[in-house]
Amino acid sequence: MLFKELIKKKRDGEELSKEEIDFIVKSYTRGETPDYQMAALLMAVFFRGLNYNETLYLTDSMLNSGVKIEVKTRGTLVDKHSTGGIGDKVSLVIAPVLAELGFKAPLLAGRALGFTGGTIDKLESTGMKVELSSDEISEVVEKFGFSISAQTPEIAPADRKIYSLRDATATVESIPLIVSSILSKKLAVNTDAIVFDVKVGSGAFMKTMERAEELAKGLVEVSKLYGKRAGALITEMGQPLGLFAGNLLEVREALDALGGSIEPDLLEVVSSLVGALYELTERGSFEEGKRDAEMVIREGRARDRFVSWIEYLGGDLQREVNAKRLLVESPLSGYVQSIDGESLGWLVVEMGGGRKRAEDSIDYSVGLAFFKKIGDKVEKGEPIGEIYYNRGNVEEFKRKFLSSYRIGNEKVDKPRIIKKFVQ
Amino acid sequence: MLFKELIKKKRDGEELSKEEIDFIVKSYTRGETPDYQMAALLMAVFFRGLNYNETLYLTDSMLNSGVKIEVKTRGTLVDKHSTGGIGDKVSLVIAPVLAELGFKAPLLAGRALGFTGGTIDKLESTGMKVELSSDEISEVVEKFGFSISAQTPEIAPADRKIYSLRDATATVESIPLIVSSILSKKLAVNTDAIVFDVKVGSGAFMKTMERAEELAKGLVEVSKLYGKRAGALITEMGQPLGLFAGNLLEVREALDALGGSIEPDLLEVVSSLVGALYELTERGSFEEGKRDAEMVIREGRARDRFVSWIEYLGGDLQREVNAKRLLVESPLSGYVQSIDGESLGWLVVEMGGGRKRAEDSIDYSVGLAFFKKIGDKVEKGEPIGEIYYNRGNVEEFKRKFLSSYRIGNEKVDKPRIIKKFVQ
Repeated sequence: MLFKELIKKKRDGEELSKEEIDFIVKSYTRGETPDYQMAALLMAVFFRGLNYNETLYLTDSMLNSGVKIEVKTRGTLVDKHSTGGIGDKVSLVIAPVLAELGFKAPLLAGRALGFTGGTIDKLESTGMKVELSSDEISEVVEKFGFSISAQTPEIAPADRKIYSLRDATATVESIPLIVSSILSKKLAVNTDAIVFDVKVGSGAFMKTMERAEELAKGLVEVSKLYGKRAGALITEMGQPLGLFAGNLLEVREALDALGGSIEPDLLEVVSSLVGALYELTERGSFEEGKRDAEMVIREGRARDRFVSWIEYLGGDLQREVNAKRLLVESPLSGYVQSIDGESLGWLVVEMGGGRKRAEDSIDYSVGLAFFKKIGDKVEKGEPIGEIYYNRGNVEEFKRKFLSSYRIGNEKVDKPRIIKKFVQ
Repeated sequence: MLFKELIKKKRDGEELSKEEIDFIVKSYTRGETPDYQMAALLMAVFFRGLNYNETLYLTDSMLNSGVKIEVKTRGTLVDKHSTGGIGDKVSLVIAPVLAELGFKAPLLAGRALGFTGGTIDKLESTGMKVELSSDEISEVVEKFGFSISAQTPEIAPADRKIYSLRDATATVESIPLIVSSILSKKLAVNTDAIVFDVKVGSGAFMKTMERAEELAKGLVEVSKLYGKRAGALITEMGQPLGLFAGNLLEVREALDALGGSIEPDLLEVVSSLVGALYELTERGSFEEGKRDAEMVIREGRARDRFVSWIEYLGGDLQREVNAKRLLVESPLSGYVQSIDGESLGWLVVEMGGGRKRAEDSIDYSVGLAFFKKIGDKVEKGEPIGEIYYNRGNVEEFKRKFLSSYRIGNEKVDKPRIIKKFVQ
């Protein structure tokens, strides 16, 4: 097979076969195909797309480049994956809730990427162990009913190699490539069902409903072709989720949430995802799952499970948030019209709460609090948020925070948190 | 400037500025940008195109990566460039004719590329010197009124580097990239006007009128933006041009043609190109130029000039065509419906008359003769062509020759040789 002919085939809009896609992945991963030919192919895919079958083949080849994770436990194994957004601490809350409801939830999570935070960095802010072997995951799931650990380098190494090339060649934004990248890791675990939380809006990678739906459908359809029960919720990310963005701040918020003191938007996302998993696993209806999750949270029943899990893995929940604080007051009265989530995400990165380069270290204590959301009424001088900072120019941070908020006279409806259930 | 941002810009269909394109060419040529980023950009250009201004900037940057050729002579300097086809010996005929008509014609030509022959290889079949310095070109033009020599590596080295990447990444077929590649070399010579012979049909790189017109317009418009008088003829290449394809065979055909014994299609192309140059240089009308060229050819007035030019540069026109010959007879009676020029071109390559790899040596004596063209009547058993061969399976060659010809009962019009004059 000639790689150049495969570039030409995709360039001209033809469908690639399973064998051809497997050849592409293997020859590239083994270093037999140079980066420049793979780069040209990726750009051709950006323009021509991949259909669901091609996406499945690509997923499968990348998945087979690495190991699979076999979690040894009885019961219904479920997974939840978010496409990433600002203030997204859903995994920290939902995993112990699912365990409390009798599911087994072995979640694999990632580190901060661009303007969005990473669940693994958040957990690491407590000092806990986040890199677990397959056996350790089984043991932790057996003990706590859930586990959240880092994606290991042994899972889908082909995806990692291809992803860094996409990052350098402006081909990250291709939806079939996003789908296969996510699924090559998610399908490597022997879960019975998976729910995707596809974020849409200014603080997400998918800025429009159209692209979010395309991604959600791709994730669900290709998972189903692979033989996995799957569904996706498209959820609001036109503004930060919950009260805080920042590593240690979000762990504390998760702890409060699990204790019953939870922001309404976070509760809506967590309980709806549980509802979706009820339906996917035929445990009950969407509404039943949602109600059960709300009950567990309101009654604080999953909090101790979360605390003892973190402590078991060496984490310390008593760590102080070690940062100076500055309130951000509204410069005028009115209603919050819109919030630029991506700018706020980059602001957290700039303050040291994320990474500009992979080798950057993170200041776990810095971050932002959001007291007002879209549709809220604000008075001039009233605090709309707070900045937790250490190094850098805080006046500049404040300026950026304010420029991410648009406040005007018009009354604005609060956006719906759950936009759509794709299954 | 970040290269990745420029990829994204072009990927999203935006226009690149002169400075951005210059950065792309310079950073890539100097090795500061890796092949894979350039490959992604080229594929984005394949899909999004370049407008005439962007194509001019790319041409200009590549041109400036090398030297310019300053031909020192008085009179009107003209150039002719063909996009390549099977049996295309036009340069060999037109250059001495232009000189005879008082023009100065310093042509730079290339070697065989894919299924098409190269003027330089044809000339080299006589043993003559084909690599001339700028000063030598001036001297030869001063002496003979014309010169045909090889493109030197000092002209547009950036184009050479980019072309090999395009070749490996299936991005050769992009029309703006073809235009800038051609012009980065053509505009490096101080000619007053240039005419492009854009070939269209089965034996050309442009198989359809639509693509040929797009290429012709690109070449002409960008040349004019650069400040050069330019026009293009779109000419028939749905079948071989003239009587022969093959290196030494074509030199001999050119010699006969210059002596007045010329195939009608070759005469039509040569004289029309001269007509176009008359109009472009305001020497006279298209029809006047065409008539003057026909006269020179019919009267054999440019033949001696051609012979003494070859001999001056060490060539030997007495060289024998050293090959076995086999006539190809028509298997049935009827009319020639169509001819697959590209297959015939590859057949010449397979017999040793072209190169599969750059390092292959050429058997100058092999080639094909074409006795019948589209629309001609043939009888069963009548020779339609002849194979000049040395090594290889001649029965197989014959089979391929015949399978390139479609003969049927329907009467077919002869195609028009000159399809369009773009200026």
